[in-house]
Amino acid sequence: MSAIPDLAAIEAMDAADPLRSMRDRFILPKGVIYLDGNSLGAASHAVFDELQKASTQEWAQDLIRAWNTAGWFDTPTTLGDQLGRLIGAAAGQTVVCDTTSINIYKVLHAALAMRPDRSVIVAEGDSFPTDLYMAEGVASTRPGAVLRLEGVDAPSIEELIDERVAVILVNHVNYKSGELRDMVALTRRAHEVGALIVWDLCHTAGALPVELDRANADFAVGCTYKYLNGGPGAPAFIYAAKRHLAEVRQPLSGWWGHARPFAFERGYVAGTGIRRFLCGTQPILSMRALKGALDIWDDVDMAALRKKSIALTDLFIQLVEAKCGAFGLTLESTRDGSRRGSQVSFLHDHGYQVMRALIDRGVIGDFRAPSTIRFGFTPLYVSYRDVWQAVEVLEDILRTGAWKDPRFATKEAVT
Amino acid sequence: MSAIPDLAAIEAMDAADPLRSMRDRFILPKGVIYLDGNSLGAASHAVFDELQKASTQEWAQDLIRAWNTAGWFDTPTTLGDQLGRLIGAAAGQTVVCDTTSINIYKVLHAALAMRPDRSVIVAEGDSFPTDLYMAEGVASTRPGAVLRLEGVDAPSIEELIDERVAVILVNHVNYKSGELRDMVALTRRAHEVGALIVWDLCHTAGALPVELDRANADFAVGCTYKYLNGGPGAPAFIYAAKRHLAEVRQPLSGWWGHARPFAFERGYVAGTGIRRFLCGTQPILSMRALKGALDIWDDVDMAALRKKSIALTDLFIQLVEAKCGAFGLTLESTRDGSRRGSQVSFLHDHGYQVMRALIDRGVIGDFRAPSTIRFGFTPLYVSYRDVWQAVEVLEDILRTGAWKDPRFATKEAVT
Repeated sequence: MSAIPDLAAIEAMDAADPLRSMRDRFILPKGVIYLDGNSLGAASHAVFDELQKASTQEWAQDLIRAWNTAGWFDTPTTLGDQLGRLIGAAAGQTVVCDTTSINIYKVLHAALAMRPDRSVIVAEGDSFPTDLYMAEGVASTRPGAVLRLEGVDAPSIEELIDERVAVILVNHVNYKSGELRDMVALTRRAHEVGALIVWDLCHTAGALPVELDRANADFAVGCTYKYLNGGPGAPAFIYAAKRHLAEVRQPLSGWWGHARPFAFERGYVAGTGIRRFLCGTQPILSMRALKGALDIWDDVDMAALRKKSIALTDLFIQLVEAKCGAFGLTLESTRDGSRRGSQVSFLHDHGYQVMRALIDRGVIGDFRAPSTIRFGFTPLYVSYRDVWQAVEVLEDILRTGAWKDPRFATKEAVT
Repeated sequence: MSAIPDLAAIEAMDAADPLRSMRDRFILPKGVIYLDGNSLGAASHAVFDELQKASTQEWAQDLIRAWNTAGWFDTPTTLGDQLGRLIGAAAGQTVVCDTTSINIYKVLHAALAMRPDRSVIVAEGDSFPTDLYMAEGVASTRPGAVLRLEGVDAPSIEELIDERVAVILVNHVNYKSGELRDMVALTRRAHEVGALIVWDLCHTAGALPVELDRANADFAVGCTYKYLNGGPGAPAFIYAAKRHLAEVRQPLSGWWGHARPFAFERGYVAGTGIRRFLCGTQPILSMRALKGALDIWDDVDMAALRKKSIALTDLFIQLVEAKCGAFGLTLESTRDGSRRGSQVSFLHDHGYQVMRALIDRGVIGDFRAPSTIRFGFTPLYVSYRDVWQAVEVLEDILRTGAWKDPRFATKEAVT
């Protein structure tokens, strides 16, 4: 490990940061160091502009005609292609729609239908829970389907992958620890036994470069409100590899996925290509907010993003361990930057109170039970100086015991 | 039929309209008579205010904390209760989420699970098609389920209702003709044979008073972007009668419907009450736009709304038949206002061109193949004078044959 940098060295890192001008595109409140962009990304001027345009101009002035004149109807696929560039998906394979949970349901059903002689769904015991809940839901409507979990039915996911497996649902980056899976290797392993694989990119899209096409992935889903900064509950996405698009079918067969949605035919005929993953009418205002957020990415070099992400998280680990090491913190994330998403988690016996105290002092991360304090580093708007300041505050809270203040012990509804 | 009113009489009707001040809450472009609020409702100042607040204040300034501080997490149920008052649903039975199509999937699955010894789903052959597409999707994931259609398997829906039927999915107002079903009678008939009934309220909510509780309905779904003016693709809703809430289960079992969404438990446990129809994280910006739109309804007398709706549509029929009767128009809607939603449809052999010509002259309705021209009358912002002027334009287009202009023959992507 290199020597602990001082503030001057850290300010030099910011001065040399090729992404530093991106911060001006975002609105960040004064007095806040925002290390929770992995939960909800920050707002941007581009988003406000798109919202304004879509509501006061297109909707208010063009009314129903805006479905044509403003291209509303094609928003799911135009945004899909725009987002596809950030996850290594060539055009025509990504669509923005609905929620991550609903999209998991669609792709799991689609994958099971493509492997009618198999019945096992493999997932991770420490998955973000909604993935498991949706897999349960799929199993409830697919007689004979069985869910097998890493950490429950076997210690590693690789040991669960055999010829009985229809589909593997796996998080690219673990929401809690930040551990990054090897997409190429696990996809290859799935294909060796004839299984399909679904990558959950919630903690990846916008956090680091993803190469779905190159990894030969089958399907992917993810949200757009974390590192992509699309706004609270912004619509999610689905990727389906081009080679599957002709045969794939999913049961949420609504009119937006129909081959001829405005012919008002009685029977369902799946549309061509990725559109067949659409179901109902999408929330255009939230979609357009997302467009504003995605436009920002047109100017981002993903290699520079990854480099900065690793540098920010390495620096955070280094400073915390150097300055706070005596105060009961244990690194939960891996120390190897190449196997880590853009987040760092530490364990602390009183993690909830520590995080409440941090937030009270303007350093916003989050807490995941039972004892994880989690910090997300969005390279577009987090500076090296932010990292330094956050650690100063954390050190002070731990050293002084400020987190023991009784007002930090009460539970909030959502953290 | 009474004598044809002249313009002075029509202006007197506007002057006496108890709802006339509501028009000022909406933005309507100059030179437009908007008779397509049954497809996409108009924008309002209240919507813009909510969007502004949710984006530039709550999101931008409170960031992740807004899930608590701004009540985002409870938006689906708070909006649900607010909307419930317009459809005769006591609190705790309505939730705003996802799309109508997805909500149909949820309630049909839930209803089938409540009648495990039955397998028939009854719907209408001339339903809005997505209802049928979703029923197909449900049948594809529920072995043995059979879809039987009014107009295909029997002339009337009543003839299809017997002891084999698990659930009936029916539109309260037909999207094309505007025909209004008798909710009390059909619900009673369903219950007589032990079946459940799902009412699709897309063309009802905000168009006329609905009394779900009084009718003893089981479930309902609907959209909020038509007469409720929630914005393009605004989130949809689900109603489930309180008596079903303890036992009902649906397969889109995402984390927002979990009993303890922030405990991050591995297994799914359905939340209590109507929340169990939730699935994934909802698009908060579109939800908040809807809140602005629903706030307007707090000041609306639903009886006055219905009275004006019937008066507007009666007047339209009367004036069209008196002034345009010679030009090949046939009334498709019923003449009986009590059995009609807030829309009027006419058939015309060249309906597509006639509608294009109307839109070109600023009278916006829409066209539904093969020959329906459809006009929606939103009592909150359509005046009697609008009706009079729309008929003047229609008469001119038909009398002069202006609709024969070749530029009205080309098909647009969406109408």
